[in-house]
Amino acid sequence: MAELKTYSKEKLLDLKAALQEEYDAFKAQGLKLDMSRGKPGSDQLAVSNGLLDAITSRDWEDDASNHSLEYRNYGLLTGIIECKEIFAKLLKVPVSNVIICGNSSLNMMFDYITQCMLTGSGAEPWKDQGEIKFLCPCPGYDRHFAIAEYYGIKLIPVDMTDTGPDMDAVEELIKDEKVKGMFCVPKYSNPTGVTYTSETVDRIAAMTPAAKDFRIIWDNAYIIHDLTDETEKLDNIFDALKKYGHEDMVIEFTSTSKISFPGSGVAVLAASDRNIQMIIDRMSVQTIGYDKLNQFRHVKFYRDVKGIKSHMKLHKNILAPKFKAVINEFETQLGKYGVATWTKPKGGYFISLDVMEGTAKRVYQLCKEGGVTLTTVGATFPYGFDPKDKNIRIAPSYPPVDELLTATKLLCICVKLAACEKLLGENNC
Amino acid sequence: MAELKTYSKEKLLDLKAALQEEYDAFKAQGLKLDMSRGKPGSDQLAVSNGLLDAITSRDWEDDASNHSLEYRNYGLLTGIIECKEIFAKLLKVPVSNVIICGNSSLNMMFDYITQCMLTGSGAEPWKDQGEIKFLCPCPGYDRHFAIAEYYGIKLIPVDMTDTGPDMDAVEELIKDEKVKGMFCVPKYSNPTGVTYTSETVDRIAAMTPAAKDFRIIWDNAYIIHDLTDETEKLDNIFDALKKYGHEDMVIEFTSTSKISFPGSGVAVLAASDRNIQMIIDRMSVQTIGYDKLNQFRHVKFYRDVKGIKSHMKLHKNILAPKFKAVINEFETQLGKYGVATWTKPKGGYFISLDVMEGTAKRVYQLCKEGGVTLTTVGATFPYGFDPKDKNIRIAPSYPPVDELLTATKLLCICVKLAACEKLLGENNC
Repeated sequence: MAELKTYSKEKLLDLKAALQEEYDAFKAQGLKLDMSRGKPGSDQLAVSNGLLDAITSRDWEDDASNHSLEYRNYGLLTGIIECKEIFAKLLKVPVSNVIICGNSSLNMMFDYITQCMLTGSGAEPWKDQGEIKFLCPCPGYDRHFAIAEYYGIKLIPVDMTDTGPDMDAVEELIKDEKVKGMFCVPKYSNPTGVTYTSETVDRIAAMTPAAKDFRIIWDNAYIIHDLTDETEKLDNIFDALKKYGHEDMVIEFTSTSKISFPGSGVAVLAASDRNIQMIIDRMSVQTIGYDKLNQFRHVKFYRDVKGIKSHMKLHKNILAPKFKAVINEFETQLGKYGVATWTKPKGGYFISLDVMEGTAKRVYQLCKEGGVTLTTVGATFPYGFDPKDKNIRIAPSYPPVDELLTATKLLCICVKLAACEKLLGENNC
Repeated sequence: MAELKTYSKEKLLDLKAALQEEYDAFKAQGLKLDMSRGKPGSDQLAVSNGLLDAITSRDWEDDASNHSLEYRNYGLLTGIIECKEIFAKLLKVPVSNVIICGNSSLNMMFDYITQCMLTGSGAEPWKDQGEIKFLCPCPGYDRHFAIAEYYGIKLIPVDMTDTGPDMDAVEELIKDEKVKGMFCVPKYSNPTGVTYTSETVDRIAAMTPAAKDFRIIWDNAYIIHDLTDETEKLDNIFDALKKYGHEDMVIEFTSTSKISFPGSGVAVLAASDRNIQMIIDRMSVQTIGYDKLNQFRHVKFYRDVKGIKSHMKLHKNILAPKFKAVINEFETQLGKYGVATWTKPKGGYFISLDVMEGTAKRVYQLCKEGGVTLTTVGATFPYGFDPKDKNIRIAPSYPPVDELLTATKLLCICVKLAACEKLLGENNC
């Protein structure tokens, strides 16, 4: 099999007709499949069911001297100590630099950026500094970009490379004092699966942005979300920052959304002494405290970092075959046509598929009409605009393997069909 | 016994000496008692322990068609339907006008005011309208005032009367278009225990503030928190608003913080279609969703409004004797001296004690040195400043009855001691 671009017009028309037939057959099945969001499947939810039994009323009967008794009442704004200890160890930061909040790290990021807007990140409130900008390594996480866009912060795209964001570009862009921050998913990045190299982490930590109140949202969402038995090494950002005296530049986030239950987990933040204090100053006005019983539930279920890590193997055992199924199908169906490239991530929740330039939207449309929902094309770029119209984020976690395979087969047909159309000079999108 | 102000100097000195002796005896006990916060006691927490067993892993095993299965995953931004139905019934509003969030209604208020600051409540963002103001019926809830103060909103005090806020004053003040809103605790108000009368609710609903983007934070925190077998009637604010076409003017809040567990309950918001949509627009950027399992836990535990109401009788049975103990002690110890007045609330969490003008801070100080922590004097007023230095908020819920009685006895001594000092022209504070 040769690459598609070497095909004659006649051969392309033949292939297209064959693909169209396959496509129509799929369409006739009336499929309703979804590969759009990084949502754990029901088999993954089941491995956390024990969390629902981790605390019961009996925990509050046996021992009146047990300090967990108090967790039912108001107090402990920054979280319960046992929970802080586990996440401090996981993030390799001091306990005093950790805050445990509610169920959503996205909410913590939103609240932090809101805080910067209204009261500043150390200097003047961002709202009073005219048009400000954020660097958005892309493809990246749409919900990050949405926060900045909601507040009218200008999104500046930066290319993701296989070592992390294009640091030459970043170092140039931060000379603009209107650039106030950057979003990073440093491990198993959403959606490319890249883990930032030591050199990238060091260059980030060493940065001296023109804006003295520059803040990096270090969203370590996939910190232990491995798909193999080894974990990719990510350097501790706070160790790197310390070398340069830049500890205030980064706020780190993580959560158990893809460890325990999405929506009913615990979310965590780590930051410098100074940032922690500013965050507490806001939180103490915002709330009396977060759900400590749910924090305690997680502590009782996992016990320690080791407990969390061994729990993650259960997720890996479910997820790895799903990723493998998709990637195998890509290799078999697309491999030799030269119409697409894809990542083979060692962790995280996504496969990043690059189809032929100018065909991603058409692939999305064909899939949709065929019964498979993909992540909206462009979602992984600022303002939902993929300038090359080629990136598609694939989320293999939610469907069962058989459905996933069916969806991937259809997707492969659509990728090839759209490529044929493109090469034939047809404009269908 | 005559009123203290009719005492001769000699008689005052005698009384003071006797009180000082009593005071010193208390102080020698090394007490550590707290009447400062509206925090449920451990006996109250115990009545909700069943909530900890309301959902277990078995709920996710029996029936694969059960839609609650999905509650473990992402989704349902505005809350689960069963929970919305209960609170819609309780608040007497349509289900579509209800949002269930996380564990804290205070957090929902903070987020709403933040939203108004950054994106507006319907007109220009509040941050862009120069110095804005909020009306603060007082004595009132310190945490309300703190939110506005945090954002630099000017706090305008309005007197609380026994029918609600002084509406003549309110109607005058809202002619200023810089006045953007008002805080209200309409039932069993914190701390005076007043429930707004029908006339007050109607006058509030009828208001036509100069500011078109005026918003009332209607914090219905004590909606069913009765201390007797009858509930004080509060008119439905949305029914009243409808009469005048003013539905957009009010955002109502409530929570189960003092129904189930403080800090691990569910918080609820009700608003007009237009406001709900603006709030959802923000929430959809802020988070993927709140803790639906905790919402489901509450649904399973209470089942319906009737279930919540019968649960509240358990709280009443614990709280009513505490309130009675404090009020009895006030009557016995302070009754005839004419040095204080106090409320006899039929619900809520507080007794509002007015001591002799200019002595509240001194009473606080004496109590503190004697081992009893009271709510900081002034906390119930904007900027923490009680212009008459006379109001003390008493929170009887937390200590066991015996400790509460001890603390109240000391408090009564301090109230009289401070009054003696004042009448003798001593200045101790």
